[in-house]
Amino acid sequence: MGLVMDEFMKAAIDEARAGRAEGGIPIGAVLVHDGQILGQGHNRRVQMGSAIRHGETDALERAGRHPASVYQNSVMYTTLSPCSMCTGAILLYGIPKVVIGENKTFIGEEALLAERGVEVVVLNDQSCVQMMQDFIRDEPNLWNEDIGV
Amino acid sequence: MGLVMDEFMKAAIDEARAGRAEGGIPIGAVLVHDGQILGQGHNRRVQMGSAIRHGETDALERAGRHPASVYQNSVMYTTLSPCSMCTGAILLYGIPKVVIGENKTFIGEEALLAERGVEVVVLNDQSCVQMMQDFIRDEPNLWNEDIGV
Repeated sequence: MGLVMDEFMKAAIDEARAGRAEGGIPIGAVLVHDGQILGQGHNRRVQMGSAIRHGETDALERAGRHPASVYQNSVMYTTLSPCSMCTGAILLYGIPKVVIGENKTFIGEEALLAERGVEVVVLNDQSCVQMMQDFIRDEPNLWNEDIGV
Repeated sequence: MGLVMDEFMKAAIDEARAGRAEGGIPIGAVLVHDGQILGQGHNRRVQMGSAIRHGETDALERAGRHPASVYQNSVMYTTLSPCSMCTGAILLYGIPKVVIGENKTFIGEEALLAERGVEVVVLNDQSCVQMMQDFIRDEPNLWNEDIGV
């Protein structure tokens, strides 16, 4: 990953931006299997009144049902460090690698992922940081609700 | 909890049975706040083609959006030891207590819950054990898909 941003992280950022444009929380994720997008999604707390549709879980849901072997050859791209629930979903399905846009505005369960053998790559992309900083400034209560604070 | 089973675990078992009657995986859960059911649900992998609607996450989803203070005074009742994803959801929302029907057919992340300060009560109820044993015997592939094996 050099000067040209990975196309999958770009797709995750596009999802996050689409979610914000809908009035939602700007976090997006893309599940990639063998170099192909299997599912992509974004946080839908506001849009669906959902307590469980985070970026990563929404991507998993939209990817549909798959056998373990598919997940075990997949990578989860997410714009923000994964919370406990999304970390647990990654562990449940044995996804071996997670690429994270940034962990400066929120740090989730990266240590647990690493402890369980998941490869964790943190890009600390400035556009991801800015997107969350703007959102948290504008909607602090909504953000706290989403992370159980 | 003596000879008379807790009404909330009964409700969770009823959810699990309803899910099985729909052709689904028999795991149910009930989220209780201040002695009242806030949401109840069951695994909907088959019914909704869902990768994220387990018993506990379905109960959370059907409970709708709540501030952290509500979850922090709630108890999650589930017929089966919670998987990584459902454990993560419990940790995300700071639910302080989990009552588990059984952990003989599957043991999830009870150790992680306890390590994070969640009170874990395991009933090892025979009707819960039997329900899962019957299901796993009848639908081993579906069960493996649900737990990422």
